[in-house]
Amino acid sequence: VSAEQFAALLGPAGWRSGADAAGYARDWLDRFGVPPLGVARPASTPEVAAVVALCRAQGIALTPQGGRTSLCGAAVTPDPRGVILSLERMTAIGAPDRDSGTVTVEAGVVLAALHAALEGSGQIFPLRLGAEGSARIGGLIATNAGGSHAARYGTMQDLVYGLEVVLPDGTVWNGLRAVQKDNAGYQLRRLFCGAEGTLGIVTRAVLKLAPAPQARATAFLALRDAAALVAFGRAIRAEAAEFLSGLEFFSETGLVLALKHVPNLTYPLGSRASFYLLVELEAGSPKVPLDAILEDAIARGLERGEILDGAIAASEAQRRMFWRLREEQPEGQRLEGAQLKHDIAVPPGRIADYIAAGAAFCAGHLPGIRINPFGHLADGNIHYNLTVPEGRSDFAGLAATLDEGLARLAESMGGSFAAEHGLGRSKIALADALRSPAERALMRAIKQALDPNGTLNPGVIVSGEES
Amino acid sequence: VSAEQFAALLGPAGWRSGADAAGYARDWLDRFGVPPLGVARPASTPEVAAVVALCRAQGIALTPQGGRTSLCGAAVTPDPRGVILSLERMTAIGAPDRDSGTVTVEAGVVLAALHAALEGSGQIFPLRLGAEGSARIGGLIATNAGGSHAARYGTMQDLVYGLEVVLPDGTVWNGLRAVQKDNAGYQLRRLFCGAEGTLGIVTRAVLKLAPAPQARATAFLALRDAAALVAFGRAIRAEAAEFLSGLEFFSETGLVLALKHVPNLTYPLGSRASFYLLVELEAGSPKVPLDAILEDAIARGLERGEILDGAIAASEAQRRMFWRLREEQPEGQRLEGAQLKHDIAVPPGRIADYIAAGAAFCAGHLPGIRINPFGHLADGNIHYNLTVPEGRSDFAGLAATLDEGLARLAESMGGSFAAEHGLGRSKIALADALRSPAERALMRAIKQALDPNGTLNPGVIVSGEES
Repeated sequence: VSAEQFAALLGPAGWRSGADAAGYARDWLDRFGVPPLGVARPASTPEVAAVVALCRAQGIALTPQGGRTSLCGAAVTPDPRGVILSLERMTAIGAPDRDSGTVTVEAGVVLAALHAALEGSGQIFPLRLGAEGSARIGGLIATNAGGSHAARYGTMQDLVYGLEVVLPDGTVWNGLRAVQKDNAGYQLRRLFCGAEGTLGIVTRAVLKLAPAPQARATAFLALRDAAALVAFGRAIRAEAAEFLSGLEFFSETGLVLALKHVPNLTYPLGSRASFYLLVELEAGSPKVPLDAILEDAIARGLERGEILDGAIAASEAQRRMFWRLREEQPEGQRLEGAQLKHDIAVPPGRIADYIAAGAAFCAGHLPGIRINPFGHLADGNIHYNLTVPEGRSDFAGLAATLDEGLARLAESMGGSFAAEHGLGRSKIALADALRSPAERALMRAIKQALDPNGTLNPGVIVSGEES
Repeated sequence: VSAEQFAALLGPAGWRSGADAAGYARDWLDRFGVPPLGVARPASTPEVAAVVALCRAQGIALTPQGGRTSLCGAAVTPDPRGVILSLERMTAIGAPDRDSGTVTVEAGVVLAALHAALEGSGQIFPLRLGAEGSARIGGLIATNAGGSHAARYGTMQDLVYGLEVVLPDGTVWNGLRAVQKDNAGYQLRRLFCGAEGTLGIVTRAVLKLAPAPQARATAFLALRDAAALVAFGRAIRAEAAEFLSGLEFFSETGLVLALKHVPNLTYPLGSRASFYLLVELEAGSPKVPLDAILEDAIARGLERGEILDGAIAASEAQRRMFWRLREEQPEGQRLEGAQLKHDIAVPPGRIADYIAAGAAFCAGHLPGIRINPFGHLADGNIHYNLTVPEGRSDFAGLAATLDEGLARLAESMGGSFAAEHGLGRSKIALADALRSPAERALMRAIKQALDPNGTLNPGVIVSGEES
């Protein structure tokens, strides 16, 4: 009965079920999700509102799904009676407002499509991440996405000026204001960023744009050790200041795996080291001597012994190769075999401490375990991923122990066990264990206040049973 | 009885009443506030928690107060049985973390004291505003303060990594994490920013620092008209991009009042115009040719006829004078007589439209009314302030009409009627009138969920009677 109601409401293009819904059922890591009752594909905000209202009336759990690249099970459902909501038909991109530096988009827009639409406009939307070819704006907002340029430009919540949201009772909140400063009460636009679709369905957004860079310099560096990462990171943050767009690191372990498994990668230096760092500076004025600033910073890093070797990209092709070495880190590791992913953040000054303590902890539990820390040096976000020891195919039942120990270690250093991927379904137990009862109770109170029936993505961020 | 309990709890230094509390009773504009039961001045987070718990147990309304420069009555109480909470004894500033770019402070720290503490550290806390000599961190967080550098560095919520908050039931939420990326559920740290003390009492914060600028160039420009403000604003935002620290405008009306009333102001140009613009560029590297970038942008603005005259500061003294001309705008107007203040924001591209439509609206109601728009060009935040016509001492009973009309005009342009000062007590009726029932209901639901007894700053953001 329910399925027919959705089909009647949305028409043949707007409702998929059975085999047509199979492609929406599982998450990117193929760990979560069952085939749902169906997939609602509304084409407008009123249709989204009607879907939400119907779900609420029928007691159906509604799970919004963007590009389905969630790493924590937030965008699929464990409930065969549940409905998945995809806004993939809502992909309108408004004309960028050049005078005000904003653009209004529908939530189904794929990030790469937005980048493409802004080409030549003199403005950019400065969120960059590996999944940009599939990630959609609604999902990026729901997860408060970060990525490689967050230290300079902010995470998604810093880039959202206004939102249109369908609330759990099916009413539409029009908060599509196009200004940075709006202090007319609680910062609702920020609250919906990172709420993982549990408080409302974002349907449209006014996004902040930045001037397109007019100059760029990119270096690939081999660093002595993790301590050198921290020391040179501090120096380059000070010396490159507002030009620093990217500061991405990875390890020799990860380089080996990427070169082994990913075709057409070229290592650009003559010697190897324990850590590698990609530094990218961008400036809005062609008058800025970025090469000189970068060369001087590197020269000083060499003098201090932090940098062992390095190259500055002489062409766009070379620059792309530097980035690919970093971006293929997840793929190289995935192809090596069983892995455990951890998305932690620590204050940048503690990165070396974390890497050392994490290695000791992991090796103490499972000798030979391969650790592949990579990520965003400027904001301290480490994807501290583990691969099984050579010759093993699993983690010997230690996955939960490793997950929790590494999470606790990040928290103990003033960091976060859930930096940019969110809690979803897979990290709720960790959140309940590691975060204070006061914090978890606040979140349950907010969920209960805004979605008392538990219609929207139940079981995400807070467990369904509580409150 | 209650007063004695507070005195017993906090000791003689921690509780003021009677004449000793008189200095805390009224707001900065002397429009709101009655003498409270007393002023609680706790010296530690546990003492704050005890005060909150006692207020809740006794049914006493607790109003937190920072530097008491609120313009909307948020930091004083209309309730003679209410208690004011001041954290002026909690003024510790931790050692700045140079490796991670953060500093941890208590909420009673005055902004200027934080600036002074960071002198010579190579880092700055980039929030700047006129009231920085009195405004305290807790109040800046509670109001999500913006100021003159918000377009570059963000508002307060963008600068807060972690918070410690005493919740309405007296429990302490320790969210003092020191990382940008923390997506472990709802963004509570953002929710408390701008909550005006209605959801919790911020006691400590981990703040984000920025590299101290190493170069600076400042210009004072006379512009043809409001349309030229918009056009040159767009150009300089593109050409100066990440160097643009300040883009502050004011009008000939405001200049006349400032020169008339404020001593020791010097106008730096040979001719006058209808609008003036202060442009300040700052760079983290001394290698950036800021003067050349600024001179070129000005030359193009002159060619296009947007700029009529201008000067680049040749000394720090001259730069300070440029800034004083802008910063003394409120004081010049205050000394001229009765005024109405409006804190609106529109998309920067709509500033000229707003100024023109606002002038027509105001003159239609009260011929001869003097309009003094000034503010932050880069983020569209206009302090659209009105002075009575010459010879009049009041607004002829039209204050509410003018307030509402100008508020509606901002909202109709995709802006906000409450840009950076908050709602407090004075703008709740406007919020109820101008914002959707869905938005106001969301805010009431959040307040009800977190502070069901209405202990913290009742009557602020949402009216006390509802929910």
